[in-house]
Amino acid sequence: MRPLRSAEVIAVGSELLTASRLDTNSLFLADRLRAIGILLRTKAVVGDRADDLDAVLRAALGRSDLVVLTGGLGPTDDDLTRTVVAAALKRPLHEDTAISELIRERFARRALTMPEINRRQAMVPEGATVLPNAHGTAPGLYLEAGEHVVVLLPGPPRELEPMFDAVVRDHLRARTAGTRVYTRIVRVFGRSESHTEEAVRPFYAPWASMALPIEVTILAARGAIDLHLTVNARDETEADEVLVPAVRQVVEAIGDDVYSDDGEAIEQVLARQVTTRGWRIGVAESCTGGLIAKRLTDFPGSSAFVEGGVVSYSNAMKTRLLGVPEALLAAHGAVSEPVAEAMADGIRARSSAEVGIAVTGIAGPDGGTADKPVGTVVFAVVTPDARVVRTRTYPSFGRELVRDVASHAALDMARRLIAGLRVP
Amino acid sequence: MRPLRSAEVIAVGSELLTASRLDTNSLFLADRLRAIGILLRTKAVVGDRADDLDAVLRAALGRSDLVVLTGGLGPTDDDLTRTVVAAALKRPLHEDTAISELIRERFARRALTMPEINRRQAMVPEGATVLPNAHGTAPGLYLEAGEHVVVLLPGPPRELEPMFDAVVRDHLRARTAGTRVYTRIVRVFGRSESHTEEAVRPFYAPWASMALPIEVTILAARGAIDLHLTVNARDETEADEVLVPAVRQVVEAIGDDVYSDDGEAIEQVLARQVTTRGWRIGVAESCTGGLIAKRLTDFPGSSAFVEGGVVSYSNAMKTRLLGVPEALLAAHGAVSEPVAEAMADGIRARSSAEVGIAVTGIAGPDGGTADKPVGTVVFAVVTPDARVVRTRTYPSFGRELVRDVASHAALDMARRLIAGLRVP
Repeated sequence: MRPLRSAEVIAVGSELLTASRLDTNSLFLADRLRAIGILLRTKAVVGDRADDLDAVLRAALGRSDLVVLTGGLGPTDDDLTRTVVAAALKRPLHEDTAISELIRERFARRALTMPEINRRQAMVPEGATVLPNAHGTAPGLYLEAGEHVVVLLPGPPRELEPMFDAVVRDHLRARTAGTRVYTRIVRVFGRSESHTEEAVRPFYAPWASMALPIEVTILAARGAIDLHLTVNARDETEADEVLVPAVRQVVEAIGDDVYSDDGEAIEQVLARQVTTRGWRIGVAESCTGGLIAKRLTDFPGSSAFVEGGVVSYSNAMKTRLLGVPEALLAAHGAVSEPVAEAMADGIRARSSAEVGIAVTGIAGPDGGTADKPVGTVVFAVVTPDARVVRTRTYPSFGRELVRDVASHAALDMARRLIAGLRVP
Repeated sequence: MRPLRSAEVIAVGSELLTASRLDTNSLFLADRLRAIGILLRTKAVVGDRADDLDAVLRAALGRSDLVVLTGGLGPTDDDLTRTVVAAALKRPLHEDTAISELIRERFARRALTMPEINRRQAMVPEGATVLPNAHGTAPGLYLEAGEHVVVLLPGPPRELEPMFDAVVRDHLRARTAGTRVYTRIVRVFGRSESHTEEAVRPFYAPWASMALPIEVTILAARGAIDLHLTVNARDETEADEVLVPAVRQVVEAIGDDVYSDDGEAIEQVLARQVTTRGWRIGVAESCTGGLIAKRLTDFPGSSAFVEGGVVSYSNAMKTRLLGVPEALLAAHGAVSEPVAEAMADGIRARSSAEVGIAVTGIAGPDGGTADKPVGTVVFAVVTPDARVVRTRTYPSFGRELVRDVASHAALDMARRLIAGLRVP
């Protein structure tokens, strides 16, 4: 038999098609399958309709080695997974009396009589291996059909997850090629998705033609770009042999805009920079309204290097709590480089922070002028060694995104300043 | 042409098949489609592979009237949606120079040259309507093909959502059967999901048997509960006839824990309360690290009532910027009712805020003691008329959730205090 390489997950249940319910089992399965070298190729959510499930199942069998179905194993009429799979694979269903006995006992332990409909859960397609369910009545099923493997798992995560880890994984691993997927993430800030791709595209062809080919995915979210470099390898050493030099190529091609070559968040990078220097960070925020302080304190242990900050949403707060001179505000306006710099100096002077980060701007949708349109954000970062003040204009991003991107930009500016890099 | 009744959503992007990324656009779309009487029948996630996307698309066209594809409209090689749809529907692609000009201008406004690859985003299948994208470079596309409608939307929610609401909905509604779904949202804080359900369950049977039956969905997220009451009606007047009295019943059954009977966010409720009194809010945050200030300033126009705040992550900040006496910190510890009250008084004294909100606590995972375990959070709210101090313990929620729930709890405490309600 050929090794299992690709998989599809089909989640069954009409409730998963509503606005309020999300299939999260597939995330668990993606992670577990990837760990044993099986690539999740497609996933689907199907309501409790036999015709739809049948069509989606047949399509999946047509392209993937492994099909995992979750849910629809309950005792009621709308639980169709068992019967649809049996029909598609042409395996008659027989009652497994050992299972019905187990279910009966489960009910008896709670002093209940098993409802007759629960006998449906004891129906097993010919040739299937029964997967015991330690946390519920519906057993799972494992079937080999030609080159394909089909696995049926119960929908509740607290039943599905232990069942996968206890029995399914070993069944599957015995049929894989023995490799798994390894990923390295390079994180970039300060250039667009397209400019990032332009820089790394020359590597695509040579990487794809290596003995262990590298696959590249570029993800852009909220102003930051992530490059995922992936290989299928036997072990970490083999993976590193190709990934380490590839990551080095990316870092060289992109330069200072790379803030992490191992998937670290910008907050963690900055945390490391300041803690090795014994510094603490203080933040003075206007338009970001507390978001930078919130981000820095998202991580456990942040009290070791975060002093705190001032959200100076009003001019009075800038004057009273940060000591920004009223004359400066009157002369230049709250959104100006002199005021941003005074805010950064102010938070340093009024706290024990060595690093002062200040942001003032117009997040919108109102408050813009011809001179300073909505999206204008002024940044200042001051350390014991250096200082930088910059103005950026983010056009038509919308309030939320301006604040998100501005908070990332402020942290990235601090990273560059502390590392002694040029701040564009 | 027959009316649109059923839909499929296909999310495109290999990143959506990893363990860390979830397609949430389909939830938004399920909700919006439902509102105009279109049932979501299946959804799928496909990686950046033309063959898989082609197969899933053809299957969807075989069973649903409407197919909505999200993502894969970017400028890079792995953005395949446009070309695969054009091929499947046999519509040649032409460059729409008006679009390439718009993209070029977008780059020019940021003083950048458009990379040549971005011209891909200007390719339009014959006969398609171009949907302008106010928040990004990739336009959406709307195609009618025989009895089918195919819609291509950009992947980022902040581009997809306004595009759907601004143009797609009206296109689709013109092709539906005429009724639509009307929803009223009642928002609750301060009781569990099950206790909320217990209070409203007696209404379920009478509501379900009305001429226009009301459907109820209860959603719990981050400590807050939303009750969605929906009816299928011809127009708003018809819907209001049943929904308005039903909402009144819910509000009476749940009482003070209802903070909104029309879907308003807690921040907006509080904003209204303080602006009608001519008050401003100041925040003093320790464990929430800026999150409360951030939430209050998430909404446009918040500068009218948000004074700002202090993130006093260190004791020194509490003393220096909020005037909390060192002796108080030494006697009671930073996480204590006297300190929380001093923080709320401190932010009022040091700003023009009439309302002072203070939070200090142990978000975890470290820092807990036998007396004050992880999850202990102390709140204080002071207004010109009243004050309240409370201690809550959130067990084993995890750092992020403790911070989220605590920020909501602080805002809700302020709501109750200002409204003259009892604060439990």
